[in-house]
Amino acid sequence: MTDMTDPYLIISSDSHAGLPTEEYRPYLDTRFHRDFDEFLGQRESRRAEMTRLGIRNETFATKWFEEHEEGLRGGWDAAQRAKELDGDGVAGEVVFPDADAVDSRTAAPFGVGLGLSGDQDPDLGMAGAQAHNRWLADFCAHDPKRHCGVALLPITGDVGRVVGEIHRAKEAGLGALMIPAMWVDKAPYHDRRYDPVWAAAAEARMPVITHSGAAPRHEYGDHLGIYVSEVTWWPARPLWFMLWSGVFERHPGLRFGIAESGCWWLPNLLWFMDRLYLGSHGGKKLSPFAELKRPPHEYLDRNIFICATNTKRRELAQRYEIGVDNILWGSDFPHPEGTWPRTREWLRSTFHDIPIGETRRMLGQSAAEVFGFDVPALTEVARRIGPLPSDLGQNANQAPVEASWRRSRETGRHWLTGFDFPYVGVGDD
Amino acid sequence: MTDMTDPYLIISSDSHAGLPTEEYRPYLDTRFHRDFDEFLGQRESRRAEMTRLGIRNETFATKWFEEHEEGLRGGWDAAQRAKELDGDGVAGEVVFPDADAVDSRTAAPFGVGLGLSGDQDPDLGMAGAQAHNRWLADFCAHDPKRHCGVALLPITGDVGRVVGEIHRAKEAGLGALMIPAMWVDKAPYHDRRYDPVWAAAAEARMPVITHSGAAPRHEYGDHLGIYVSEVTWWPARPLWFMLWSGVFERHPGLRFGIAESGCWWLPNLLWFMDRLYLGSHGGKKLSPFAELKRPPHEYLDRNIFICATNTKRRELAQRYEIGVDNILWGSDFPHPEGTWPRTREWLRSTFHDIPIGETRRMLGQSAAEVFGFDVPALTEVARRIGPLPSDLGQNANQAPVEASWRRSRETGRHWLTGFDFPYVGVGDD
Repeated sequence: MTDMTDPYLIISSDSHAGLPTEEYRPYLDTRFHRDFDEFLGQRESRRAEMTRLGIRNETFATKWFEEHEEGLRGGWDAAQRAKELDGDGVAGEVVFPDADAVDSRTAAPFGVGLGLSGDQDPDLGMAGAQAHNRWLADFCAHDPKRHCGVALLPITGDVGRVVGEIHRAKEAGLGALMIPAMWVDKAPYHDRRYDPVWAAAAEARMPVITHSGAAPRHEYGDHLGIYVSEVTWWPARPLWFMLWSGVFERHPGLRFGIAESGCWWLPNLLWFMDRLYLGSHGGKKLSPFAELKRPPHEYLDRNIFICATNTKRRELAQRYEIGVDNILWGSDFPHPEGTWPRTREWLRSTFHDIPIGETRRMLGQSAAEVFGFDVPALTEVARRIGPLPSDLGQNANQAPVEASWRRSRETGRHWLTGFDFPYVGVGDD
Repeated sequence: MTDMTDPYLIISSDSHAGLPTEEYRPYLDTRFHRDFDEFLGQRESRRAEMTRLGIRNETFATKWFEEHEEGLRGGWDAAQRAKELDGDGVAGEVVFPDADAVDSRTAAPFGVGLGLSGDQDPDLGMAGAQAHNRWLADFCAHDPKRHCGVALLPITGDVGRVVGEIHRAKEAGLGALMIPAMWVDKAPYHDRRYDPVWAAAAEARMPVITHSGAAPRHEYGDHLGIYVSEVTWWPARPLWFMLWSGVFERHPGLRFGIAESGCWWLPNLLWFMDRLYLGSHGGKKLSPFAELKRPPHEYLDRNIFICATNTKRRELAQRYEIGVDNILWGSDFPHPEGTWPRTREWLRSTFHDIPIGETRRMLGQSAAEVFGFDVPALTEVARRIGPLPSDLGQNANQAPVEASWRRSRETGRHWLTGFDFPYVGVGDD
């Protein structure tokens, strides 16, 4: 049973780092320092706006910062961060912006962090992105085997500059690219203007990712529930824009991911798109989908992945539809909605009855492949800090575990395997 | 086994009727006749636009009209319509606009049919809506027990006029109100400006409904797949705008429905919203949701229903999460993506292993309650034309059928019943 004595090599596909905002100044081109002072001066009004919509809860914020002051410094202090990752049993991580999701004290200049939006001023947007990207490259360089930095890419701006920033980020050691979830008034992502960008990302082997955060907040009034109910839809939306317009057909090497938006919605979407392409009754009156050469699920499995963050039991039960290899777990460190600092407990309560081989894929192996982590180097780290299957409550005798999911697994994507619907959870009898 | 000898009382919660466009003229206020001529003159360009996006398929259209010429006249000819309903075994129906979903030959004036949109010119929009509403009231009056007409309501216009149209439609015998799925640049549906409208609809006992059709097409280029992939999201969106802003708390008698957008998406949405309200880990950093007095699923069960049209097996498998009583089947007559003229076959392939009692709810009883059909009168019609459970392939011995769904039923909304996920389809073992 060597499997039981191998610690998990865990990679968080969704973590966050960012400097306290004012400290970005040395990373920012000097010609933007005046704009930066103005941006800093608007901090209070931005905070008031977040409190008004209810995204910021004063009582929670006070308690959060009191209880986690030391650990939260890991948002920008590399030594502290290593301690926190070790404590959580996380060997490697994919690093998105905005360490502080409670008070926005580490917002990147000009709001280009998780709020990165297609309608940003192109000059300020690129300046802010470059400031963060420079700092992030330095930060990841403290221990490159453990950190894959995600460069901010304001993709709706001038294509030449965008492609240039991809090359610069690659040379600086960053490993992925975050684009705005929303293009707003700019060209949607089906537009051919982005082809050079997709080509450059594919060539650099840098996955392109959207992350939840941006949303049309002007439509929500002060109703927080509306925002939360659809905030994960907007980062998912580029998936079907890119897929149906043939982006993945023209750029077979491009990898596109969606972060911190869950993956519960994917089975329905895939079922719907596949059936549409394969000639469902409801689509017969429509023209054929000539831009694709294969059904949508084939692009999903080849080109798309989900940084599903703190995966829910409901989502894991649907993993044979989503595709086990398409689900990348993440801790969301150091955000309070994530699993830090109790990741080991979360993993146990979530994965206890999932087959060990599948757990290894979702907790690290798939992320290692997508983001090109150095697996032998990370294995050393995992030996030191990684939890064992027994720490996750997993049974040494895997035969009944595998058997309990047999019908779910065999049904899989039921529209392709001849079943009427997925047989979820039959294993827990 | 009297249950086996009772024919189904079937109500289609989603059907369509509309005049050949030019025939709307006598129903339109004369001062808009000049605008109407202009609108008629743009028919070819509208058709070209639909062909370009692929919503219209020339080859399919030719075949469709050839094969169904006679039946399609039921889109506006009451006598022909009765024959078609009888043939399908459908006793009653809820009548939306736009009989012709292939060539748009029956588009209501000024595009206020299924494409009804919040940014419509308020004068033309109301004029077009009133023309259709007048005709529809006449049409339904041919056999009021069988037809519940849905009045078009361009809700983003002047509130006084909108409330006036509700009263007028009610007096004319119409039974429900269709509002635009998209407000576009007008006030979103959380806005208190709409309170008098919701109050009037509740008082008139007229359900308010969105129907799929409108979408931000300008974003799609000529990529049909993008349109189809999200066209059902836009009519569903008002649900969470109204729910989280307390519309259903302030108007407990209001009924809101979503038509021809499926219901596969509802379990995920409900799971997400309920957990958010009930204090999930991910929402702890947020402010509480003070506008609601009960969890979202209580509003769903009290105020919301789904005109789910041609229900899919995948959706029926999730009916204990959606709520059996919230699912209203529909034929979509006379649209090609619906079940006409082979509704009896569709019902058999879809409902054969669903308990008869639940089938009765979804095929007619719930719709009768929501829309206030005259059940004794319709029962007479059903006795003449309604299929028997045996026609749907349903078993006279219902005990094993009920037993086969037991675990799914007991799990229900798993986040409320203490299960980790829904146990779907265990019954088919």
